[in-house]
Amino acid sequence: MKNYIWVKVFKDENKERIKMEVGLIGLGKMGYNLALNLRDHKHEIIAYNRSSDKTESIEKEGIRGVYSIKELCHSFKDKRIIWMMIPSGDAVDNTIDELLEFLSPGDVVIDGGNSFYKDSIRRYHKLKTLGIDFVDVGTSGGTDGARNGACTMVGGEPEVIDYLSPLFKDISVENGYSYIGAPGSGHYVKMVHNAIEYGMMQAIGEGFELLNASPFDIDFHNVAKVWSNGSIIEGLLMRSVLGAFEKSDRLENIQGIVDSSGEGQWAVEEALRLKVSMPVISNALFARYKSVDTGKFSEKVVASIRKEFGGHAIHEKR
Amino acid sequence: MKNYIWVKVFKDENKERIKMEVGLIGLGKMGYNLALNLRDHKHEIIAYNRSSDKTESIEKEGIRGVYSIKELCHSFKDKRIIWMMIPSGDAVDNTIDELLEFLSPGDVVIDGGNSFYKDSIRRYHKLKTLGIDFVDVGTSGGTDGARNGACTMVGGEPEVIDYLSPLFKDISVENGYSYIGAPGSGHYVKMVHNAIEYGMMQAIGEGFELLNASPFDIDFHNVAKVWSNGSIIEGLLMRSVLGAFEKSDRLENIQGIVDSSGEGQWAVEEALRLKVSMPVISNALFARYKSVDTGKFSEKVVASIRKEFGGHAIHEKR
Repeated sequence: MKNYIWVKVFKDENKERIKMEVGLIGLGKMGYNLALNLRDHKHEIIAYNRSSDKTESIEKEGIRGVYSIKELCHSFKDKRIIWMMIPSGDAVDNTIDELLEFLSPGDVVIDGGNSFYKDSIRRYHKLKTLGIDFVDVGTSGGTDGARNGACTMVGGEPEVIDYLSPLFKDISVENGYSYIGAPGSGHYVKMVHNAIEYGMMQAIGEGFELLNASPFDIDFHNVAKVWSNGSIIEGLLMRSVLGAFEKSDRLENIQGIVDSSGEGQWAVEEALRLKVSMPVISNALFARYKSVDTGKFSEKVVASIRKEFGGHAIHEKR
Repeated sequence: MKNYIWVKVFKDENKERIKMEVGLIGLGKMGYNLALNLRDHKHEIIAYNRSSDKTESIEKEGIRGVYSIKELCHSFKDKRIIWMMIPSGDAVDNTIDELLEFLSPGDVVIDGGNSFYKDSIRRYHKLKTLGIDFVDVGTSGGTDGARNGACTMVGGEPEVIDYLSPLFKDISVENGYSYIGAPGSGHYVKMVHNAIEYGMMQAIGEGFELLNASPFDIDFHNVAKVWSNGSIIEGLLMRSVLGAFEKSDRLENIQGIVDSSGEGQWAVEEALRLKVSMPVISNALFARYKSVDTGKFSEKVVASIRKEFGGHAIHEKR
């Protein structure tokens, strides 16, 4: 074993903090933890969630809660910084429309969710005509990252990002915040990040499937542990597998169904648009589609063809 | 930014060390560093390499060098522990055959390279009939790992592994050593590890190719840095990309040719044998094959067919 260990020590932080007032919309797993993270860094958080239970819950943590978009917008002492952590798609457009009833030129709207980058560019232009700044933030690191130090990829106008950068730096691990570039680029890089994640996860899944079929009786928890320590494939994903196998070495209680939330699909669509070859990432996406497919129509077609031309047995439904 | 930093502190090691005499065969990138690592942990190393230059070099590091297998085997005071770090295939069989002229019952032969697991099982049985123990060690972590703390996956008989475990623990990072199981299982798990690595690396490659084709002007070094800190896809592979982009942000001096050394192919062959579906890992392997393919015969065939049935233009050779 190595003859050293790693220990956390607190840095001497004597530079003056820049405190900001932030309205956080959306107290789901990510937003809730992000609010606590920002609060810990001494920012003033005004938290709003569509359903009131989360707001009540976060008020018990000492964070100020509000119960309408109107109340949220009227709670700011000065320039409004609105940070949305909500599902991508219509919810974002609807929330922005609601906000626009109350926002003023100079305010800032941050989308910290997983929006499609072209939507973010569109929203940037829409708000720009009203004098409101729009910033797209790809946020990675999961709920633990949101709570204790995330990874943030930020797109927007340089001066706006410069102004907001203390927020992004505060919620990120060291070197985990980056200004990417023009509006939309933060969500673009996050989209690609998630696409890579699809491919890496599928590779890990396939590897353990091979181990599961292997002639050896292998302790998967043991393997995930050793692969998480000093190997080439170590990282947060492998530590997540380790966590899963800690609970159950053969994942008995988990169905082999993998949902997808959009970014992988957008990345493959973007690859098609740009004629970029992505066999691994697209196969990882297709493997997820197949995992939720109960109809198995392509397999029915193939089985039927084999029966038609070669008389091969088919598995008939009873 | 987080308000702590990580620092190395040395552990208090007051338990008595178990020192072993180890003959290391093969002073390539991995073997050379492993010899230094073992030496630092106070084991007595006798180093041998087929060509003498490496041996002369490691002698300057204060490690005892020998210049023949015979000299190596005659240099032990007691029980011989021979650790091979040599290329897989015939080289391993030939080295074992040479060793067998001098080894005695009770000696141990360790294969720390990337041998095919069925070869390792065969070698285990061959040596077993002569009373010699055989141990297969999958070693991960690259040259830096070999030098400063690797990840080791070990197969063999429990009592033999128990005896040798101080060696494996010493060269590994904390929790980076694992006894996997029966002979061959160490190399099996290492084969799957490398197959996962193929898939993960290809996913990373495809992601950056999409970024490279994207409508944004993106600083790849910046992206690799932020993805290495707090993101879901952080890990040694991403830090390796970061290292590459530190040298050159568009990798101008690197050809897009990826070699493969066997483990990915073996894993896909094993998947075929066991009828396990591995779309991502097999595509990652095929992408490597395609990267070295200058003949592009399948593409010629497809272009010809398009020309034949549809009169589509072909790119003729000049």
